[in-house]
Amino acid sequence: MRWKRTHTCGELRKQNDQQTVILMGWVDRWRDHGNLLFVDLRDRYGITQIKVDIGSEAYPVAKRMRGEFVVAFKGTVSLRPLDMVNSQIPTGEVELVAHECIVLNSADTPPFQIGTTINASEDMRLRYRYLDLRNPRMQQKLLVRHRVAQVARQYLSENNFVEIETPYLMKSTPEGARDYLVPSRIWHGRFYALPQSPQTYKQLLMVSGFDRYFQIVRCFRDEDLRADRQPEFTQIDVEMSFVDEEDIFAIVEGLMARIFKSELDLELTVPLQRIPYDEAMRKYGTDRPDLRFGLELQDVGDLVHDSEFKVFSQAVASGGKVVGFAAPSCARYSRKQIDQLTDFCKERGAKGLVAIKVKGSEWDSPLTKFFTQEQQQAIVERLSAKDGDLMLFVADQVDLTLQIMGELRVMVARQEQLIPADVYKMAWVTDFPLFEYSEEERRYVARHHPFTSPRPSDLDKLETEPAKVKARAYDLVLNGLEIAGGSIRISTRELQAKMFNALGIRKEEAQEKFGFLLEALSFGAPPHGGIAFGFDRLIMLLTHSNSIRDVIAFPKTASAMSLMDGAPAQVREEQVKELGLILQQSPSIKAGE
Amino acid sequence: MRWKRTHTCGELRKQNDQQTVILMGWVDRWRDHGNLLFVDLRDRYGITQIKVDIGSEAYPVAKRMRGEFVVAFKGTVSLRPLDMVNSQIPTGEVELVAHECIVLNSADTPPFQIGTTINASEDMRLRYRYLDLRNPRMQQKLLVRHRVAQVARQYLSENNFVEIETPYLMKSTPEGARDYLVPSRIWHGRFYALPQSPQTYKQLLMVSGFDRYFQIVRCFRDEDLRADRQPEFTQIDVEMSFVDEEDIFAIVEGLMARIFKSELDLELTVPLQRIPYDEAMRKYGTDRPDLRFGLELQDVGDLVHDSEFKVFSQAVASGGKVVGFAAPSCARYSRKQIDQLTDFCKERGAKGLVAIKVKGSEWDSPLTKFFTQEQQQAIVERLSAKDGDLMLFVADQVDLTLQIMGELRVMVARQEQLIPADVYKMAWVTDFPLFEYSEEERRYVARHHPFTSPRPSDLDKLETEPAKVKARAYDLVLNGLEIAGGSIRISTRELQAKMFNALGIRKEEAQEKFGFLLEALSFGAPPHGGIAFGFDRLIMLLTHSNSIRDVIAFPKTASAMSLMDGAPAQVREEQVKELGLILQQSPSIKAGE
Repeated sequence: MRWKRTHTCGELRKQNDQQTVILMGWVDRWRDHGNLLFVDLRDRYGITQIKVDIGSEAYPVAKRMRGEFVVAFKGTVSLRPLDMVNSQIPTGEVELVAHECIVLNSADTPPFQIGTTINASEDMRLRYRYLDLRNPRMQQKLLVRHRVAQVARQYLSENNFVEIETPYLMKSTPEGARDYLVPSRIWHGRFYALPQSPQTYKQLLMVSGFDRYFQIVRCFRDEDLRADRQPEFTQIDVEMSFVDEEDIFAIVEGLMARIFKSELDLELTVPLQRIPYDEAMRKYGTDRPDLRFGLELQDVGDLVHDSEFKVFSQAVASGGKVVGFAAPSCARYSRKQIDQLTDFCKERGAKGLVAIKVKGSEWDSPLTKFFTQEQQQAIVERLSAKDGDLMLFVADQVDLTLQIMGELRVMVARQEQLIPADVYKMAWVTDFPLFEYSEEERRYVARHHPFTSPRPSDLDKLETEPAKVKARAYDLVLNGLEIAGGSIRISTRELQAKMFNALGIRKEEAQEKFGFLLEALSFGAPPHGGIAFGFDRLIMLLTHSNSIRDVIAFPKTASAMSLMDGAPAQVREEQVKELGLILQQSPSIKAGE
Repeated sequence: MRWKRTHTCGELRKQNDQQTVILMGWVDRWRDHGNLLFVDLRDRYGITQIKVDIGSEAYPVAKRMRGEFVVAFKGTVSLRPLDMVNSQIPTGEVELVAHECIVLNSADTPPFQIGTTINASEDMRLRYRYLDLRNPRMQQKLLVRHRVAQVARQYLSENNFVEIETPYLMKSTPEGARDYLVPSRIWHGRFYALPQSPQTYKQLLMVSGFDRYFQIVRCFRDEDLRADRQPEFTQIDVEMSFVDEEDIFAIVEGLMARIFKSELDLELTVPLQRIPYDEAMRKYGTDRPDLRFGLELQDVGDLVHDSEFKVFSQAVASGGKVVGFAAPSCARYSRKQIDQLTDFCKERGAKGLVAIKVKGSEWDSPLTKFFTQEQQQAIVERLSAKDGDLMLFVADQVDLTLQIMGELRVMVARQEQLIPADVYKMAWVTDFPLFEYSEEERRYVARHHPFTSPRPSDLDKLETEPAKVKARAYDLVLNGLEIAGGSIRISTRELQAKMFNALGIRKEEAQEKFGFLLEALSFGAPPHGGIAFGFDRLIMLLTHSNSIRDVIAFPKTASAMSLMDGAPAQVREEQVKELGLILQQSPSIKAGE
């Protein structure tokens, strides 16, 4: 380098007046005023205006510059005339009067304008990701990500947690999602798997006595991707020994408070609210309730089971639920608006939606004829409905009703702009069911994972009434998203074996897949538990991003491709052969096509 | 948990006398003194002695404890009688007089004694890694690793570096080592590769303007493993824009100084010594010289080319070298000892070793007859040989001679215990050749990687005299090991294309493999360069470990297996089928068998 950079483009202020400095960066804008050129020079730290006079040595070089050229300017810092001050940027009071300049590298015209996303499709932005990442808005997201990771590491280290790196090439133990496999070249026909999480390793580290472990670690799931999923994602993974739920909640609340304070300058009120799973489902129709607004669901089954309105009474009679909430000031809704809500519910499987307007404290609805005055009144009261509200009800099977009403609650809140901006409502959801029934596999599967401890008082129901067993599991929810989930683990071999059995995993299969863990539990495992944060999602929330792809430097598309380098790609024939593998058909065929 | 732990087993001191505390941990030792039991309770933080009197409630429970049981004790801290103080451990002045205790988990008898490696083969230790990791010596290594990672992150963050996570599922671009491949389930016949390093990504981040990047990141190489290699290993990966070698040296020296200060309480003297590659080869016969001792090699070709000793004169005549050094006080060596040195050289390809004893300042050797008095004297002087030294020479082709003498130098230094313990000698090796000739591929290959910038003054030789082109590459060596390597990169598309061409990579191939990088370089790449540390090796050196496996929580064997969980393992047939693959033969066959 002929020159050394003395300052960044975000650094110069009034007090640097008259200093000779060297700046390097990208040409953000370039304006030719005849015998004067202005260059806005950009780097990660900011933008500085460069003034190039026609008389200066820099002029002929600067004249040939174009957008995104990489250039260096030597010059004198100078105060801008008062009427030229740009208060929008921190360097706006000064400019650099150029003496000399160098073009360090030229640039072809970018396929889209740097710093905006207006004229670029997301595919285009992903293909030229390195250009999209020149956008200061995108850079800020990754800077937040960096800072939050550092703060988390520092907090956990201060609290005696040890970051320990666990293997990426591990054993395939598919239970839940699909593993990415890595064929072994040395052992033909055998495969490693990329970790879906370091779950077994962190438990083994507890057996080793590491006491407090964490890791910010990449995890992998070969799933059919939804919009907010990526084949590889990052977790803050935490595990502790000699603890129960309270210890884990305290550590996590401290971590979240630290992150909120350092990144958002917000004081998080702890301890956080705790909501048992059953209550969350009952009140919000979901296990990750958005608590930034009310509209709590109300079960009115007991009030309407004997009404003449068959939709309600029959739902109750057949074991279902009638659930409603009052949409504030929505009695003004037109027929069309109500039809839209009805369609929303029908798309999700409801037979229909019952909408009743409230006027004063009375019903304003043709349905009044099916209900007694007392029933009407009781319902208004149960829903705390007020004059001008619109009461909305779905009556159907329990799970479906709750789920639909939970989604409707969020939809109405968004539509009515009841969700305050820049508010963060965090809570624990606790007492999850240990199992859920998989229609596909026709068996109970672990809701969390098979290492989650059942509640001790439910142990006797493990094999007889699995649906009733609660887990020592907990989720941390923030603004309607699950940002962390964890549990107290099973720490004895006997209970772990019983759990595998309850999950319908045969003894030999359990031994083959998880023998090493069962064995480890028999050599003195401490009581332990932990949690894992979805780091990408946390950063998404902290940066108000709409897509998880915005907070990942080089993300993949919904079909798990990298549009930038074309991965996954064909490889040389020898590479496949060396692995002892044969392709079923010629490459580049999308599976199923 | 019925009880809450109040202290760790490494925490109690005299000043805790008479406090009631609860400790939890593993039974390290258990001694029955009739009406008194002693339990040494162990956790990650230390060991505390528990005294259980036959009269206490704790006694019947403690009586049933065995080694490695996980237990909790409630009791009163008490000063030990002066004659029972154990000054070996920080808690040795106190003991816990137990009131109550609980067995939290029982333990089978471990296959080897915890805390020693005496009765356990390495295979056994790897199979039960979680038990081997209970060894405080092993735990300390991972704690050092954790702390060094934190210190490195903190230092780099303070210096405006941003940690950015790059993909693990990337494109296969084998150039150098073999990639681990990950078959795509969605795109049959296509593969991802696990990164050998995030080289291309970090360069793209420079093109994005991130200016200063780092990442502590896992890398993968599917190589036939040597003793000190692992299929997955960790790098501290660093890249900077608008810099030359000096900037990178300064940042890295600051980092190393910080690590040495924090972990070893040593002041590292910076700037570090710099040794051009040619000089390193000439003086030490290696590009990673161990500078903790002298024994520098001396070329005596000019002194002996016309001697009557054909071994020497013919070596020079045929373009080879005669290189020697003086082994201090080794004139005492017996015939047998000298034969051993000779064998050492022959095993490495030398035709023989010439050993000449020095008495006073004269030769004491039958070979005197072949050399003039002046030649003898000049050689003694060139080697700075003293009375009682043994001069050792190899005469052969240049590279072979230097390599063998380099190894002999280290071997003699070890044997003579000339290498001081606890001394760290760090230096830069610079000015590497850009290319090396691959006999296997019959072409020049990149010595570092194909993105390394040639020295500007050598640009004209790139296609005509590749062997003479020097690279802007540098290695950081510590005590004879390379701990980091890096370079200033190529930052223009033109030069990068020229480089691919010089490497014999056809235009279409370069486009297909690295088109995205070439394209990125055309949109305004800043001058940039970086370095990557072998983090495992650094920790090995800092913890005085003999094996890289000792500083990795869950390492693999030389055949890339995890003895603990049996990875790589067979997977279900559907898993392979879903990937569009067929196994060449039935599984579990070691390739080539």
